[in-house]
Amino acid sequence: MTRQQLFEQILKKQSFLCVGLDADIKKIPEHLLDTEDPIYEFNRAIIDATAPSCVACKPNLAFFESEGASGWATFEKTVAYIQQRHPEIFIIADAKRGDIGHTSEMYARAFFGTTKLDAVTVAPYMGEDSVKPFLTFAGRWVILLALTSNGGSQDFQLTEDRNGERLFEKVLRVSQQWGTDEQMMYVTGATQAKLFEDVRRIVPDHFLLVPGVGAQGGSLEEVCRYGMNRHCGLLVNSSRGIIYADSSEDFAGAAAREAGKLQQEMKVMLDKYCR
Amino acid sequence: MTRQQLFEQILKKQSFLCVGLDADIKKIPEHLLDTEDPIYEFNRAIIDATAPSCVACKPNLAFFESEGASGWATFEKTVAYIQQRHPEIFIIADAKRGDIGHTSEMYARAFFGTTKLDAVTVAPYMGEDSVKPFLTFAGRWVILLALTSNGGSQDFQLTEDRNGERLFEKVLRVSQQWGTDEQMMYVTGATQAKLFEDVRRIVPDHFLLVPGVGAQGGSLEEVCRYGMNRHCGLLVNSSRGIIYADSSEDFAGAAAREAGKLQQEMKVMLDKYCR
Repeated sequence: MTRQQLFEQILKKQSFLCVGLDADIKKIPEHLLDTEDPIYEFNRAIIDATAPSCVACKPNLAFFESEGASGWATFEKTVAYIQQRHPEIFIIADAKRGDIGHTSEMYARAFFGTTKLDAVTVAPYMGEDSVKPFLTFAGRWVILLALTSNGGSQDFQLTEDRNGERLFEKVLRVSQQWGTDEQMMYVTGATQAKLFEDVRRIVPDHFLLVPGVGAQGGSLEEVCRYGMNRHCGLLVNSSRGIIYADSSEDFAGAAAREAGKLQQEMKVMLDKYCR
Repeated sequence: MTRQQLFEQILKKQSFLCVGLDADIKKIPEHLLDTEDPIYEFNRAIIDATAPSCVACKPNLAFFESEGASGWATFEKTVAYIQQRHPEIFIIADAKRGDIGHTSEMYARAFFGTTKLDAVTVAPYMGEDSVKPFLTFAGRWVILLALTSNGGSQDFQLTEDRNGERLFEKVLRVSQQWGTDEQMMYVTGATQAKLFEDVRRIVPDHFLLVPGVGAQGGSLEEVCRYGMNRHCGLLVNSSRGIIYADSSEDFAGAAAREAGKLQQEMKVMLDKYCR
């Protein structure tokens, strides 16, 4: 999917919501446990219910891998279902991969060859040759970790070098030599809303994938005030707040209502800041 | 496996060799392609052939994931085979995972719960809460990326902060607060042999996992001169140099001979530097 196509979806749905698929077998509604593949049934219902309000979804690989090979089969089935039923949805493999070039090529094959996802999250620690193999697939995106939403983001990402440049700023600056804003996005946590101005100084035009609104405490208004650009430039993720809104048989209805509420807030933000 | 048990294996086999399982379906001997699970047959033959000369093996997750769910099934079968036939071998999931705490818990469950590996490689970019969930499993190890063997290691890992501390040094220093040298090791590339002295100044007692000898050009002698400590403290990995030593029906015999050559060199190094 191109940046323009993604922006058109945002305008059409008046939403820049990404639904995070972090389904844990221990947390999904009990009545699903009798089905053949409970996590698949759960994900399918969540996506069907939230599709009118979201432009993207983000299966989190850890939650599939924790069930081993059968979890990977569920991941593949989930992706195939979304691609078939909701082809307009931008699918992000939240995998945070990254390795030496030869190995990154194999990871890229996993997410862009075997399953044809739109994007994959990649960790920057190993530098250029760990990221570039993901950029050789036309129409596919790398979403590079820059400033994450967790407490541990303080440990290394904010370290200033001799010139006062923080590590996340260096990642943003240097990585622009590896690919364009038509193939790269950056993870920028909503819990760091005040730093969005600094991020936008370096990457004014890129899309940012923003976790941390909701359960982690980030403010949508602040993220938009400091982070939105003229083609929106934001995909704001919500996982637990949507998928676990209700644990009864009405879980999908509740998820739809939560996603709908966020969509309504996002519509206001688009009117206010997207220009 | 405890550090002491690992050291005992090293003394017994007179080797600190780790065999990297990076099996690519496009590179394995043709005669295996007729079997039901060629990669499994390949891995099994390699491990049986090299077990007398190695103390560890390192399945590289990317090479399994590139085949999707069936690749993960091959990974699980490979691990189960090694655990059953060669229980003395220390098994490392080379996965380079790392995410916010809740998600890292699920990755830890994948590698230490569902499949009970001895160790997993973890990327440090997201800091403390991305690493700690892996440290809650007794007898299991985190191998944190510090100084990698690839060209891209120059991009961020060597960046000096205001006090002249390089990022890899900060990772080594700060992460020692998260776990002990009985549960953490560090990836330190053989291509950076001159920097081993700096690494050892910060982590004199930890084991280091050392890729980059062989195909990538690192020198075993230099790694040992600067990196070995009184309980060896090194696991030196070789992948392509061993597993693709020969593409004929004698591939396993050739792998055994290459591993044996390295073991002989390692025996000399142990005599010379392990004191």
